[in-house]
Amino acid sequence: MEVIPGRPDLNAAAMLELIAQAREAHAQIVTFPEMALPGYLLGDTWEQNAFLRDCEHFGHEIVAASSGICILFGNVAVDWDKKGADGRVRKYNALYLAQDGELRGGDNFPYPFRIKTLHPNYREFDDTRHFYSLPKLALELDTDVAALLQPVRLAIDETPLTLGCILCEDGWHEDYGIDPVQLLQQNGPLDLVVNLSSSPFTLGKNNKRNRVFSREAGDIETPLIYINNVGLQNNGKTVYTFDGLSTVYDRAGNIVDCCPAFEPCLRIVDLDLARGGQNLPPIEAGDDSGIDSIYQVLRYGCEKFLAQTGIERVVIGVSGGIDSAVAAALYRRVLEPEQLLLVNLPSVYNSDTTRGLAQELASNLGCLYTIVPIQPSVDLTIEQLSQTPLVNQQTGAESRLEVSTAVSENIQARDRSSRVLAGLAAAFGGGFTCNANKTELTVGYTTLYGDQGGFLAALADLWKHQVYALGRYLNDEIYGEHVIPERVFEIVPSAELSDAQSVDLDQGDPLIYPYHDYLFRGFIERWEKAAPEDILTWYANGDLEARLGCEEGLVDRLFDGPAEFIADLERWWNLYSGLAIAKRIQAPPVLAVSRRAYGFDHREAQNRVHYTDAYQRLRSRLLDSGQA
Amino acid sequence: MEVIPGRPDLNAAAMLELIAQAREAHAQIVTFPEMALPGYLLGDTWEQNAFLRDCEHFGHEIVAASSGICILFGNVAVDWDKKGADGRVRKYNALYLAQDGELRGGDNFPYPFRIKTLHPNYREFDDTRHFYSLPKLALELDTDVAALLQPVRLAIDETPLTLGCILCEDGWHEDYGIDPVQLLQQNGPLDLVVNLSSSPFTLGKNNKRNRVFSREAGDIETPLIYINNVGLQNNGKTVYTFDGLSTVYDRAGNIVDCCPAFEPCLRIVDLDLARGGQNLPPIEAGDDSGIDSIYQVLRYGCEKFLAQTGIERVVIGVSGGIDSAVAAALYRRVLEPEQLLLVNLPSVYNSDTTRGLAQELASNLGCLYTIVPIQPSVDLTIEQLSQTPLVNQQTGAESRLEVSTAVSENIQARDRSSRVLAGLAAAFGGGFTCNANKTELTVGYTTLYGDQGGFLAALADLWKHQVYALGRYLNDEIYGEHVIPERVFEIVPSAELSDAQSVDLDQGDPLIYPYHDYLFRGFIERWEKAAPEDILTWYANGDLEARLGCEEGLVDRLFDGPAEFIADLERWWNLYSGLAIAKRIQAPPVLAVSRRAYGFDHREAQNRVHYTDAYQRLRSRLLDSGQA
Repeated sequence: MEVIPGRPDLNAAAMLELIAQAREAHAQIVTFPEMALPGYLLGDTWEQNAFLRDCEHFGHEIVAASSGICILFGNVAVDWDKKGADGRVRKYNALYLAQDGELRGGDNFPYPFRIKTLHPNYREFDDTRHFYSLPKLALELDTDVAALLQPVRLAIDETPLTLGCILCEDGWHEDYGIDPVQLLQQNGPLDLVVNLSSSPFTLGKNNKRNRVFSREAGDIETPLIYINNVGLQNNGKTVYTFDGLSTVYDRAGNIVDCCPAFEPCLRIVDLDLARGGQNLPPIEAGDDSGIDSIYQVLRYGCEKFLAQTGIERVVIGVSGGIDSAVAAALYRRVLEPEQLLLVNLPSVYNSDTTRGLAQELASNLGCLYTIVPIQPSVDLTIEQLSQTPLVNQQTGAESRLEVSTAVSENIQARDRSSRVLAGLAAAFGGGFTCNANKTELTVGYTTLYGDQGGFLAALADLWKHQVYALGRYLNDEIYGEHVIPERVFEIVPSAELSDAQSVDLDQGDPLIYPYHDYLFRGFIERWEKAAPEDILTWYANGDLEARLGCEEGLVDRLFDGPAEFIADLERWWNLYSGLAIAKRIQAPPVLAVSRRAYGFDHREAQNRVHYTDAYQRLRSRLLDSGQA
Repeated sequence: MEVIPGRPDLNAAAMLELIAQAREAHAQIVTFPEMALPGYLLGDTWEQNAFLRDCEHFGHEIVAASSGICILFGNVAVDWDKKGADGRVRKYNALYLAQDGELRGGDNFPYPFRIKTLHPNYREFDDTRHFYSLPKLALELDTDVAALLQPVRLAIDETPLTLGCILCEDGWHEDYGIDPVQLLQQNGPLDLVVNLSSSPFTLGKNNKRNRVFSREAGDIETPLIYINNVGLQNNGKTVYTFDGLSTVYDRAGNIVDCCPAFEPCLRIVDLDLARGGQNLPPIEAGDDSGIDSIYQVLRYGCEKFLAQTGIERVVIGVSGGIDSAVAAALYRRVLEPEQLLLVNLPSVYNSDTTRGLAQELASNLGCLYTIVPIQPSVDLTIEQLSQTPLVNQQTGAESRLEVSTAVSENIQARDRSSRVLAGLAAAFGGGFTCNANKTELTVGYTTLYGDQGGFLAALADLWKHQVYALGRYLNDEIYGEHVIPERVFEIVPSAELSDAQSVDLDQGDPLIYPYHDYLFRGFIERWEKAAPEDILTWYANGDLEARLGCEEGLVDRLFDGPAEFIADLERWWNLYSGLAIAKRIQAPPVLAVSRRAYGFDHREAQNRVHYTDAYQRLRSRLLDSGQA
């Protein structure tokens, strides 16, 4: 099902409808995802007791609907008499089993529901902030985790059923030192394990999910059902899609059924538990690590984000470059032509080449198009800034400011976004997009209140090479024609903000994407993040390209020795861990694709730039030997 | 000491200097705060192994400096052979004791250091995300928490010393079910308890801190030393000051010594442990809940934030209203006149009254001042937006947009900030401030890329009435003269963005600050947050004003019955939990003052607005009875 975060009323209505359909189809058990009623990523909404009471209220409605059918669903459970470690009322991330209007989870557990054992506290997850875990409850009750991890014993049409009930992370126990699935079958075999999850999409994660759960089912020789929701949830700074893909594994670990990605679907599965689910033939799982998955996530994410925020009309500033072209082709898949307005915003620095490409793109997409020149306003601004006297209020002395090239570049970028695009979007009755990619966002190669503005940064979790690949995919596979003009792929990426940035003269960005994409990925996406000390060590050891995953031989071609290499490394590290953080703090929400997206997923403090002592020593050694 | 977050090199240098001074003064023990080397609020910098190695490296330097003196300090401790629950290398929030070059923490503990027991996971705290707690270690080692909570036994100049060592939250155990201090003295009396903390300022928190720690010392009849750092740390969206105020309590719980607030200070305390510290006379603790504390925090916070980010020159847009006037008077305390540029940005809607007040303010503060009219640019923008044809690329049809009053108001706000202030700040070589207050930020009564822009929102954790109080305090206590003109306090707060917003005609903001300040405070600052269901229940029960803390009788004066009351409540709740979140996601860092600041302290998801079922029912009942 699609879970609408923060709307137990809507989720309950959807669940009641699905329950009715399941009953109609003579299903014996109907299962819903983790936190199916409240949603999962809600920020600190969990601190509103009124919201908790509301979730309880709708939970009762679901339980009341269980006559003649067994319902499993996730909800927040509240113990109003106890407190969490924050002094607030105690909340559990709970799994409810209801049958004939009664709760069935309490036969060997202190509550009439089951609770999550393993609480993820990495990336976007904040479980410990809000919920009380099973190990904490065991400590409080002076018992052990194993004693609390017992299966639920049910009877379905008078057939006994021993059901292992877990929630999401409980199935991903590798680093926790507690294996809930193993503990559940400590006192005898289970008939079935059900894992209710609410698991955001990450590129390639479903491949891993299938490996982990196949092994888990096989290890205990028990069929396992994994339930996930679809929809869109966010934690403010980062927006996550949920791919669903609820999957059934037989006792050998084979996948025997699977819901489609990103589609709500009531799937009736005829699982013969006596045969461990092996009545169903194994099927092949899809791969979710390719550019097709990236497209699917972005299309779904944009569509759902627009629906969630109520934005019906979208303005995109199109420069003739690749990022805005891909953004436009993407949004065109979720909007009607008259809902999409492309705008070219030329200054004197924009070439006929890119202006023509912007027009060609709009024409190919068949949407609304306009041209709003920014030069008159930019000239006015520069004149005002440089001509208006600053008056010293003590001495009466007047002074004037100088507007440098760098300052005037940012004036252009802000003029485009904050003056024109924001104004146009408001008048058009919608929002405007941020087209920044992850490479730019990493080092703040964007202007605050300029091209970094917008209601959503849909491409900001893609490295530049992925933006190109997505552009190709859109042309070749989605549109089946070159809606993004071929020349857009060929010109050098350039900001066109000064005479020194001409696409016709091949004067492009200071970023060397085939190298910096991979260097920056090392800074943020590696599970144990690479800092200059690591990078320089790998450089000295000669295995940098292999470590980063970029083309062999590239580094030597790009940098003439350690001094150049180090200068480049420090230039970007200074930005990444300096000014770029200040910019990211005010960036729009980022649509997450990778294993680490900016925002609430990768948390940052605006601190002073740091190089470790080991880095400094290695640096000196390399520079000294370089000079020798 | 002042801890510089993310800079173990600088912190180590400061500590070595303090150790040398302590040795010079014949101190036997020198204590430093929690996480004295790395800093505490670092976002996900903890995931850089190079950073962890660097902290270890500088930790060794501190240990090596302990000849003839006992050093207690906080640092991250790494067990490179074990993992945390996130699969990364295991990290502890650790307390180190060093003496004569040796670590002394390992006599009855698995490591040669001690670790934090209670991990806060509320507000800005993310301890569980990064560190492995003592209860988790106990579970892993199959022992209990009590067995691991043992005092450290030292000898100082051949006198034995039984030392209870805890870290920060360990002293705030009320809601955890584990009391580390009680457990530490389970096997016999302690000579001294030391609590190394890194505890951000919250208005009134030090008063509570003194109550809690006085009671703790008295309960176990043992002197207690509380150590806190000063400085500024942040988690991106929210910026925290650290007030220091390291305090010594005798065995009766009296305060017998205390460092000043917000000042690094090496304090030599001659504590006679045989007498439980009662050789020193009790002293009075200061109060930290008043407007003087607010001023102190904001002045310190602005100064340190500028230093941290390297901003040396500041531009402030001054409208003649209270918020920008207070911001200007505040920044003038931390900047020289030539570093501070005030700018008035009039349109046709700005009155002579406010323009005159802005000039008067600048003159009183003696800084730089200029006037940049925005009307020419606003006119140009409106003309461009309304005159440029949008061309349908399929039909060739042309259409034009209309610029409404609301749209043109936001055009003015963005023109001021993104066009003029950002440009001026760049040309001036500095940043511009965001002067929004908490009341405005709560309901998004600010314009994105307009008055919501800036490098820091220094006043954004103050309700409007606190901004007025701070203005009075600045005039009366800090400047001793009316640098903020008296008329600024008298005029109605108004945005002056249209003909309908004239200060001379008393046409002000739609916010009724004496009520909405308190209503909104209920939404965010109550420990268990108030939602419309709670507000309406209190309204129906007649105790709303008492619950919110606003003036008695106000609600009946403002609203003519439930229909008006409900319309107002829903108007602001829709904004608070709707569009205002979208704006806050892109807001500048907020300087924290209250028990709940926007940003990383109060976490938010951009979800659909929700009213609970109980609210809907109560609403219907009140409206029906109102009609009856």
